[in-house]
Amino acid sequence: MAKQLLGKEVTAALNERIKADVAGLAEKGIQPRLGIIRVGERPDDVSYERGATKRCETLGVEYEKFLLPADVTQEELMATLEKVNNDDKIHGILIFRPLPKHLDEAAVIKALKPEKDVDGITDGSMVGVFAGTKQGFPPCTPQACMEILDHYGIDCKGKKAVVVGRSLVVGKPAAMMLLQRHATVTICHTRTVDMPSVVKEAELVIVAAGRAGVVDDRYLSPGQIVVDVGINVNEEGKLCGDVDYAKAEPVVEAITPVPGGVGSVTTSVLVGHVVEAAKRTLE
Amino acid sequence: MAKQLLGKEVTAALNERIKADVAGLAEKGIQPRLGIIRVGERPDDVSYERGATKRCETLGVEYEKFLLPADVTQEELMATLEKVNNDDKIHGILIFRPLPKHLDEAAVIKALKPEKDVDGITDGSMVGVFAGTKQGFPPCTPQACMEILDHYGIDCKGKKAVVVGRSLVVGKPAAMMLLQRHATVTICHTRTVDMPSVVKEAELVIVAAGRAGVVDDRYLSPGQIVVDVGINVNEEGKLCGDVDYAKAEPVVEAITPVPGGVGSVTTSVLVGHVVEAAKRTLE
Repeated sequence: MAKQLLGKEVTAALNERIKADVAGLAEKGIQPRLGIIRVGERPDDVSYERGATKRCETLGVEYEKFLLPADVTQEELMATLEKVNNDDKIHGILIFRPLPKHLDEAAVIKALKPEKDVDGITDGSMVGVFAGTKQGFPPCTPQACMEILDHYGIDCKGKKAVVVGRSLVVGKPAAMMLLQRHATVTICHTRTVDMPSVVKEAELVIVAAGRAGVVDDRYLSPGQIVVDVGINVNEEGKLCGDVDYAKAEPVVEAITPVPGGVGSVTTSVLVGHVVEAAKRTLE
Repeated sequence: MAKQLLGKEVTAALNERIKADVAGLAEKGIQPRLGIIRVGERPDDVSYERGATKRCETLGVEYEKFLLPADVTQEELMATLEKVNNDDKIHGILIFRPLPKHLDEAAVIKALKPEKDVDGITDGSMVGVFAGTKQGFPPCTPQACMEILDHYGIDCKGKKAVVVGRSLVVGKPAAMMLLQRHATVTICHTRTVDMPSVVKEAELVIVAAGRAGVVDDRYLSPGQIVVDVGINVNEEGKLCGDVDYAKAEPVVEAITPVPGGVGSVTTSVLVGHVVEAAKRTLE
């Protein structure tokens, strides 16, 4: 029976740290604040926003919404971003993407100040992840994976780690963050030959394949730590991960469930980034 | 007896391609030109510069030197860079580093236009390598490794590749470039446990450990392709790589010698980047 690496335990500990940081900032007269720029009313965006603002409220972080119509012009959007960029009271900015097709998303990302880029989408943040420096912020999902490992005291140093998936949002940054923690890192993907044998040799596996249940017991071996980044809806309409949990669980040492694993940590990571951004203004 | 992957063969083929590109640009009235910014007279810089300018001459690429005294002020250096940045006749810029300590190197790199960053030092270039896009240019050394693989028709797709070293100049970009070519990539480093057994499993090995002869026959196995990035001086004062060539050569299928391997390709890669930068101005 594998140990469950539970997002709620990680989040609870992370929230306590964030609250302490917020209290510390309050003593210095600083109130962390998130600026949310949303174009249109896409249900996914609205739902994520609700989660984020609720978490902000719980943790004592303020937020301000900048809601723009779906047919906003590039000029209006850029003007809004410039205002939020230059507002010293706003420490972090979340911009929902993809933007409607008539807008130049690359130009928006380029204009976003890296020091306020709490979602890790700017070049500055990406270089920070690639170089292993504190420039900008890593994307929230791979950071949530690291929070889980750290919370459960899993030391990556010298471990054989395999990352399944090479996306710019999860796979590649997760690999760089594991490397920063001194793991020996292998990146697998759709072109990998005999992936089961490659994954089987790992001590630590981060799965971000983007397909339900693709990693099953053929890929896994005793003693492994498995972090499942996938969020999919299976044939019965239930949430499930990229790992076949029922088959994996009897084999491995520890595993994150879906739901209740990585996904449940990302919102606190985002809010934590806002607080960190506020702290950095003091440096 | 391993096949030797010879830099001079790669360079010869690369030079022909570059010359054809230069001729093509000439028809469109474009003369590719490299701007070289050098502060002081460090012998290593002067020697590299001589190699680069000679190669430019051979390939029909013009160059212009901007030589500044070792005690140049930040303002003067930035003014020079701005001039070169904004000179439409100059397509690529090489800035020798490290700069003298009184100068703010980060500010200089930040000011350099990514589209002229033929040495791959800006954030824009690094994101290009990390994301696998054509933004900026990769650093010349890992690009030279890829040129060698490509020249000898070594298809990376699905291959198990191991990169020894995780520097921002070689190891990490080489790993990303192999990933872009669909290899399954493992990154090893000083904290890797039992590195010989990890490297032994690879089909393709890029060694950028930065220490003479650390990879020997204990790390290697038959059938492997080995690319040695190291340039070291051994106890007898001779140039040698990070691979113990005498011990490796009888084991592996193909290997780059040192000298005469990767290092001999980088200068043409740099000049090739200048020509590519000139071509991109037409897009």
